[in-house]
Amino acid sequence: MTSAADVLAQLRDALGERVDTSPAALSAARADKSGHAAPGAPLAVVHAASVADVQAVLRIAHESATPVVTRGAGTGLAGGANTGSGEIALSVRRMDRILEVRPDDLLAVVEPGIINADLNAALAAQGLWWAPDPASRAISTVGGNIATGAGGLLCAKYGVVRDAVLALDVVLADGRLLHLGHRTVKGVSGYDLTSLLIGSEGTLGVVVGATLKLRRLVPGQICTIAATFADVRAAAVASSAVTAAGLQPSIMELMDAASLAAVHALLALDPPTAGAAQLTVQTDGAAATADADAIADVLRAAGGAVAVTHDRAEGERLLTIRRSMHPAMETLGTTLIEDVAVPRSALPEMFDEIARIERAYGLVIPTVAHAGDGNLHPNFVFEPSAGAGADGAVPDEIWDAAGELFRAALRLGGTLTGEHGVGVLKRRWLADELGDDQWALQRGIKSLFDPTGVLNPGKVFAP
Amino acid sequence: MTSAADVLAQLRDALGERVDTSPAALSAARADKSGHAAPGAPLAVVHAASVADVQAVLRIAHESATPVVTRGAGTGLAGGANTGSGEIALSVRRMDRILEVRPDDLLAVVEPGIINADLNAALAAQGLWWAPDPASRAISTVGGNIATGAGGLLCAKYGVVRDAVLALDVVLADGRLLHLGHRTVKGVSGYDLTSLLIGSEGTLGVVVGATLKLRRLVPGQICTIAATFADVRAAAVASSAVTAAGLQPSIMELMDAASLAAVHALLALDPPTAGAAQLTVQTDGAAATADADAIADVLRAAGGAVAVTHDRAEGERLLTIRRSMHPAMETLGTTLIEDVAVPRSALPEMFDEIARIERAYGLVIPTVAHAGDGNLHPNFVFEPSAGAGADGAVPDEIWDAAGELFRAALRLGGTLTGEHGVGVLKRRWLADELGDDQWALQRGIKSLFDPTGVLNPGKVFAP
Repeated sequence: MTSAADVLAQLRDALGERVDTSPAALSAARADKSGHAAPGAPLAVVHAASVADVQAVLRIAHESATPVVTRGAGTGLAGGANTGSGEIALSVRRMDRILEVRPDDLLAVVEPGIINADLNAALAAQGLWWAPDPASRAISTVGGNIATGAGGLLCAKYGVVRDAVLALDVVLADGRLLHLGHRTVKGVSGYDLTSLLIGSEGTLGVVVGATLKLRRLVPGQICTIAATFADVRAAAVASSAVTAAGLQPSIMELMDAASLAAVHALLALDPPTAGAAQLTVQTDGAAATADADAIADVLRAAGGAVAVTHDRAEGERLLTIRRSMHPAMETLGTTLIEDVAVPRSALPEMFDEIARIERAYGLVIPTVAHAGDGNLHPNFVFEPSAGAGADGAVPDEIWDAAGELFRAALRLGGTLTGEHGVGVLKRRWLADELGDDQWALQRGIKSLFDPTGVLNPGKVFAP
Repeated sequence: MTSAADVLAQLRDALGERVDTSPAALSAARADKSGHAAPGAPLAVVHAASVADVQAVLRIAHESATPVVTRGAGTGLAGGANTGSGEIALSVRRMDRILEVRPDDLLAVVEPGIINADLNAALAAQGLWWAPDPASRAISTVGGNIATGAGGLLCAKYGVVRDAVLALDVVLADGRLLHLGHRTVKGVSGYDLTSLLIGSEGTLGVVVGATLKLRRLVPGQICTIAATFADVRAAAVASSAVTAAGLQPSIMELMDAASLAAVHALLALDPPTAGAAQLTVQTDGAAATADADAIADVLRAAGGAVAVTHDRAEGERLLTIRRSMHPAMETLGTTLIEDVAVPRSALPEMFDEIARIERAYGLVIPTVAHAGDGNLHPNFVFEPSAGAGADGAVPDEIWDAAGELFRAALRLGGTLTGEHGVGVLKRRWLADELGDDQWALQRGIKSLFDPTGVLNPGKVFAP
């Protein structure tokens, strides 16, 4: 083993001022937006500016068996990029160039550190977009979106990250550079390592470049529907009815009463009707108006009070309420944001389970859902306990309640995590979902890519 | 090593009459639709009727180190399922049940042996479809589509197999059963082994069940455009112009003069204009008519003689010409059907390369292309050489020409195989595309899943 001081000296030799050991940088690298922070501070933050920088860091790390945690903008919600004692935080945030845009081939080649919204602003000027739109799109990087396999509001209609990446340039644990995937829209030469890397949370390699599959901006109107229901179960039944009716909104978001109350308070709006839940639905494309009318009919038949607008600004205002959920939760205390997904028909039952857990644990669990794809974000809000340190430790009782939530989702045919990833926060439940055989096989893949275990150790797989 | 006789006895003990050693079955298992056949005949064909049957075969194979080649309907085009001397042909063709259809969750659970068209006929009754539509859909199985990562005519708009599978049940080399993936439309718990298995051509496991992502049948009109161009390059330029104009047909097929001539002869139609090439384009959905008009304008501006029909039967008649390509080639001699793909903007250059190879080798290479996604099928037609046996050996000169084709595709940013797979026929070029490091890593994955090497040995990776 090389000493930490030797590793630091080697990094400084190779990377000069891009090695940052300022207390502010080290402290920031411990945390993401999950509220969780790694114990201890990393050895250094390296602000990589090039593929060669990333390779240099990995070579030093591999030789010295020093853990490396790749970071983008630090907006993760599962602790996947949190960097702790003895580890190198490898930031690719400064690698933020758009290297190529090809409208004729509907692709773009980008570096991983570019912010999702910045990329989309540049693409919009050419009539193009990259569809993945996590709620964090204004602050999260494309590389982070890829590392977590992010979803978003539009993905029931326009797909998730996995549907929108053609090829990846990846630096392996030992510093070698691989080009995975294709520039073509079809390609079956060998195993699909591009998909394997997407959502691998920095445990298999470091994404240093991405060839993205673009779409044309959708022409035509955008219609927005706001529908209020007496309670969250009624809203969930209504959203399932939309899917079952064969209608495809571009966005269908559900907010329960506690979520609405918190956001209305944050935005200084009139308080919402007590107990009421809301669906916010958008349609787009050539059939936007007809689709909106048909969806409005389904929602009314399901008991909703429905308003339709064809005004884009009013539509954006309605969606702002949904997009303000995360900041609203931050005003309430420390929050554990969960991310279960269930088949769409099971949404009402999943809300029943959440209500049961609220009663059993004496909790309020404000919940929003991407109802169009069955992905729920229950928010466990708690006071940091007296004993908890800066790592934002979640009280055991909250974990017990979250464990019940996970088991309920699995019982309903669902998953622990629809779009946030496993990170550190869900790793102890992963084997429950995968089964021991698959869990062991996945660990085998991890060992194959990273035989010395330097890439984000302790994440995804519980030690 | 257990003797072949012992293995056969164990199979008969476990599987009784489902073990087939009739000469006809053994002979059929040697070949697929590529024209290539494995040397020698397999030990036996096992007609698995259940997951337990597949597990029993794998356990016996694993214990005795006997190779197993999984087969569906034998319609592959790369020799991937060809079963040779000393190997077990494991047919899952009889496992053809639809286990579940959930219109509300837009999913179906099926066994692997069901024919694509049979599944879609059953789904259509509920207003649903599974989008992948390889040209072989009337004769190929869903399991085979998954094993090759098949594409088809509609995939520029509606995606390939990888976009249409949520979860897989897979029997590993040692007989254990794994459940990969999710019933939910989103899910990022651990590595995406579902995508890894798709297109793995029987080398990582045996797919015994699939949870498919369905779509609603697209309402509205279907418009079909037939556009004739003076030569194939003009047709390719025109198809690239359609993509570059931001228009999205559901189908855009290109046929060169030699292809048209062969199909017209097969179908006893009037001979086509000498040298002329054709684009057959379809649009669907709410904007079908407007899209068709816009595409027709682009094609006319590119020099095409354009006819548009809104009649579905006439549209099907036009597409029948395209779908008759494979039988038409079979009338010409033995055919090596290639499957390169390039970025869509590179289609004209790729046709230039094909013309250059035709001149250099004194060949005619009838070529069709899924022009909407840049996937070309050049057909190398040859007389079986005097020396070639029943394995349909391709003459060296043809392989030399194919090698030039592959290198040209790679130079243009393309791939060896867009949708047919590597099988035996393209394995010697795979490392050229992947690079040695990635090729070795992929072999490592193969060894992890199949440490004793019993699953389809010699396929995908050259020995």
